[in-house]
Amino acid sequence: MRELSARPGRILPAAENHLSAEQVAAARRSFLAASAVSITGLGTTARAQNVAPAHQQDLVPAWTRGLGAPVAATGYGAPSKFEANVQRRQSPGLTRTAEASVSFTPLQNLFGIVTPSGVHFERHHSGVPVIDPVEHRLLIHGMVDRPLIFTMAELRRFPSVSRICFIECAGNTHLSYGARDAPTVQVSHGLVSCSEWSGVRLSLLLSEAGVQPGAKWILAEGTDSGKMQRSIPLEKAMDDIIVAYGQNGEALRPEQGYPLRLVIPGWEGNSNVKWLRRLKLVDQPYMTRDETSKYTEPMPDGTARQFTFVMEAKSVVTFPSGGQKLAGAGWYELTGLAWSGRGRIERVEVSIDGGATWQEAALSEPRLPAALTRFRLPWRWDGRETTVQSRATDESGYVQPTHEALIAVRGANYEYHNNGIRPWKVMADGSVTDVPA
Amino acid sequence: MRELSARPGRILPAAENHLSAEQVAAARRSFLAASAVSITGLGTTARAQNVAPAHQQDLVPAWTRGLGAPVAATGYGAPSKFEANVQRRQSPGLTRTAEASVSFTPLQNLFGIVTPSGVHFERHHSGVPVIDPVEHRLLIHGMVDRPLIFTMAELRRFPSVSRICFIECAGNTHLSYGARDAPTVQVSHGLVSCSEWSGVRLSLLLSEAGVQPGAKWILAEGTDSGKMQRSIPLEKAMDDIIVAYGQNGEALRPEQGYPLRLVIPGWEGNSNVKWLRRLKLVDQPYMTRDETSKYTEPMPDGTARQFTFVMEAKSVVTFPSGGQKLAGAGWYELTGLAWSGRGRIERVEVSIDGGATWQEAALSEPRLPAALTRFRLPWRWDGRETTVQSRATDESGYVQPTHEALIAVRGANYEYHNNGIRPWKVMADGSVTDVPA
Repeated sequence: MRELSARPGRILPAAENHLSAEQVAAARRSFLAASAVSITGLGTTARAQNVAPAHQQDLVPAWTRGLGAPVAATGYGAPSKFEANVQRRQSPGLTRTAEASVSFTPLQNLFGIVTPSGVHFERHHSGVPVIDPVEHRLLIHGMVDRPLIFTMAELRRFPSVSRICFIECAGNTHLSYGARDAPTVQVSHGLVSCSEWSGVRLSLLLSEAGVQPGAKWILAEGTDSGKMQRSIPLEKAMDDIIVAYGQNGEALRPEQGYPLRLVIPGWEGNSNVKWLRRLKLVDQPYMTRDETSKYTEPMPDGTARQFTFVMEAKSVVTFPSGGQKLAGAGWYELTGLAWSGRGRIERVEVSIDGGATWQEAALSEPRLPAALTRFRLPWRWDGRETTVQSRATDESGYVQPTHEALIAVRGANYEYHNNGIRPWKVMADGSVTDVPA
Repeated sequence: MRELSARPGRILPAAENHLSAEQVAAARRSFLAASAVSITGLGTTARAQNVAPAHQQDLVPAWTRGLGAPVAATGYGAPSKFEANVQRRQSPGLTRTAEASVSFTPLQNLFGIVTPSGVHFERHHSGVPVIDPVEHRLLIHGMVDRPLIFTMAELRRFPSVSRICFIECAGNTHLSYGARDAPTVQVSHGLVSCSEWSGVRLSLLLSEAGVQPGAKWILAEGTDSGKMQRSIPLEKAMDDIIVAYGQNGEALRPEQGYPLRLVIPGWEGNSNVKWLRRLKLVDQPYMTRDETSKYTEPMPDGTARQFTFVMEAKSVVTFPSGGQKLAGAGWYELTGLAWSGRGRIERVEVSIDGGATWQEAALSEPRLPAALTRFRLPWRWDGRETTVQSRATDESGYVQPTHEALIAVRGANYEYHNNGIRPWKVMADGSVTDVPA
């Protein structure tokens, strides 16, 4: 932007423009030349406006000089080639096999609260199965009056619901827990994504099957070759669990459980069983591999926490964040994401001075329970080294803890549910880095 | 589903199961065989559960027998190959050139309210330009104190907003206005889509430029070769127009204006100028080609309506809709979409008996102003020929009119803004067809 204004409180990126004066002047000449005919007065017809004088043709941008790409007879769109860097990514060396692996959502590139399905994070235990939806079945059995098998077509005939909510891997920010060897927000926090999920309430299917007295838990099982299995309390099933077939308006993506998965709003990702084939009503937790040898958390006294389903309130600054580079001192929008498995985000505070002072950020609307909530704060960087961080409070009153407070309670060997405050260091040269623990 | 229940009011697709009894029995055998080991009792370890007896191996689904696809080092996901029919489509012969053309969103395939960006409808006048965002500029000039040029990087530094709202082409349902030669809801209503748009409030950029007294309109111009131009009242610009760079969490798709477009909540699509290059403050409408020879509506008295910006309340049943086939009598979820440029959808009524009686449908949450709103109604089809239709009422109290009421006021030559009630005929064989006018 090429004009200055000194009124306090106004947003003035102009002084920090990273284009040279020559570049901007050239761009302005080019731009005005392309507009030269059309701005001569009101009432000029557009036909005349489309013809630039011959000597100005080379100043008209290439994309204005000819027809663009035609509409295809049928098609499914993709991002611009200029956005090719916006991808989900593995962390090199993190897992030994590519089937039992993860890829991270590029949080630093996202806007708003919806995660594009193309970059929704992945976490699989045995790869992504290719499932024919016509052949797929869901079994409900165990302590029920009527064991039932559903086809996908049958499930589609039931009353449906849609809900925008996040799914977060219990291991998100795992890499930051001890050594903090996560140089970007994609790697440190990119195992959370937010979608509009559609499907049938599990409580409705259970009422069809008739839950017997004494049933207290449900074993959920996937049909991938690892047969992911988690035990889910019946109480949550009767509340808000969705047997989901839709994601962001279309069918589930293969990596998110096509054609059927559980969506358990606010609960750790692995309990949201993908490629769902079976729900068995039982009277106690099933104690599967996936909830005994995995997804438990060792405490300092030698015991382990188990069934730590709820993802507590958490937030992270996505701009500025590790690996980014600021163009110079001046006004920016500091922004990030906050979420809580216990409901709505009530408040996000941001510190731009290493934690000395905190100010309240603006929150995006709609502000939905168990959904990502974007926070935003106009931020004038003075060009000096500093540290930025955010702290979320949810509607239950829970306040996101510091990393140090988590360590004090859990010790250093805890593996999951790291929701500690995450600082980023802004260097005087504008580069942004991880903060050593 | 293989169990029956006779309790009134419950959802019973079982009786109408379109699989034969033999097919279901075979599926059940297959399913239980695959589960045979894992259901022998509580506490069985998952390792043992993964091994099916040799004689049952052929009953285990192929996708459970081996590892699935690995996680890619970097990637951008795509839908399952089994969803290849979910595409935006042209209507053959509708336009003479593929650059000045349209493609329709497959509303019949969608869930919830978000339209996947890959199937957002298209309407272009001169094709889709390929624009380098580093080279792109936005000019604000005319009746302003400080003409300004912005780079994309500069726009990203301003305070941003996000909003979930629909964009509907003024010509949506055009094909149904006269002859009703639109056999599917994709062709009849598929020029509406709904996204989470992110960007900067236009009012903020205008306050930077300083709007001069007397300025009443804004000329918005695209940088595609046709230079789409529309005049926008300043009042709307100061209200809720967004200069948008984000769509459903990522950058705008090329077909929706990458890297920059106007989003004008509730107003006809063509005013939401794509590939936005210029905003000129003026004292009266510019009377461009795109608002004189096009996007005006001839009335029976020989005059034409102009600047008919607001898209009035409208709704359509997407299931059952033209081209679909019901599996037989019984319970289904009747569903569809409603929207209004004047705010929230307050009520959607559905008739399943040719308009004789109407009942209120359930509405999805969040129910947002100028956003698609999904409605849902459990529907027991008795297997007889009937007609289904929906009628939306918005928060202003406006009620979606009948097709006949529109014709009575506008005559038969009106071309845009067809928001009339749209019936679909369900035949006794389960096929669903257009209703002859």
